[in-house]
Amino acid sequence: MSPKRICVDMDEVMADAVAEHLLRYNREFQRNLTKEDLRGKRFWQIVPELHHEALDELLRAADFFEDLDVMPDSPRVLAELQHHYEVFIASAAMEVPNSFNPKFRWLQRHFPFIPYTHIVFCGDKSILRADYLIDDNPRQLAAFSGEGILYDAPHNVAVTGYTRVRNWLEIEKLFLGQR
Amino acid sequence: MSPKRICVDMDEVMADAVAEHLLRYNREFQRNLTKEDLRGKRFWQIVPELHHEALDELLRAADFFEDLDVMPDSPRVLAELQHHYEVFIASAAMEVPNSFNPKFRWLQRHFPFIPYTHIVFCGDKSILRADYLIDDNPRQLAAFSGEGILYDAPHNVAVTGYTRVRNWLEIEKLFLGQR
Repeated sequence: MSPKRICVDMDEVMADAVAEHLLRYNREFQRNLTKEDLRGKRFWQIVPELHHEALDELLRAADFFEDLDVMPDSPRVLAELQHHYEVFIASAAMEVPNSFNPKFRWLQRHFPFIPYTHIVFCGDKSILRADYLIDDNPRQLAAFSGEGILYDAPHNVAVTGYTRVRNWLEIEKLFLGQR
Repeated sequence: MSPKRICVDMDEVMADAVAEHLLRYNREFQRNLTKEDLRGKRFWQIVPELHHEALDELLRAADFFEDLDVMPDSPRVLAELQHHYEVFIASAAMEVPNSFNPKFRWLQRHFPFIPYTHIVFCGDKSILRADYLIDDNPRQLAAFSGEGILYDAPHNVAVTGYTRVRNWLEIEKLFLGQR
């Protein structure tokens, strides 16, 4: 029997994009917003409307996706998952077209054990043929045909209907059990 | 009932990458190789071993994928297919990482009616959840879970086991019938 296939989202699951976005926003506008302020909300909902354009601009900066922190334990757990599952990385990179190269380089740098054949840049995750998708975005999980696993993020605290994981230790436990 | 989903490869199906590759090779080495010379072979098989490295280099040129000719009738037929099917573009772009941006821009320029949500860059087309895949690469068709449609190319003349289409008029007939 071939191993089950897990697709893993990048932003907010493998990479701490929110932390970088907050850092850049706070730096530009001399604020002190934290992840706690984002609880139950999207970033644009907690800044003045005047800043919405700038918020998007920050994401489109050429080096934004180059610099993201790796989510704790994700390299170790992903490498372990590869022994028991077929693991694909699936990013909705099409939403920010100039993120392709930085995202690809980021993966090569921090997750060199993931072959390029197992990286997917798409826009709509209904295209993925896999058993599981670990993602923070409920819209993508709803489109996905397999079983969605919701990765906890400030914006999705109210979402129900999926198994929720809060960190990579919980992913390890869910997919690899107590060992 | 939701429409059936067709995935369409880019190189050698929507874009004439071989013509561009031949042109660039002939220019660099003062040759006159043609598509006829490629019949039943891969490009590297008809050039001296000394040129193999250069052959790869030509593909990695920043502007290679920017300049490709559009396969005749493909924009019109693809636009028509969208009325009856869910159409995704699926390119194995991961094989040439710096092709992401040129490929995305090429699609925007020549196929502006394809939404970015329906573009996929991947390495292994077994990840695609779709009913059909139109591709010139038998390795990708073999990995694909749905029905593979082989787009005729010099290198695949000996391949059997798939419905073969020679041009976009044949794709039109196959998927849209005589109308």
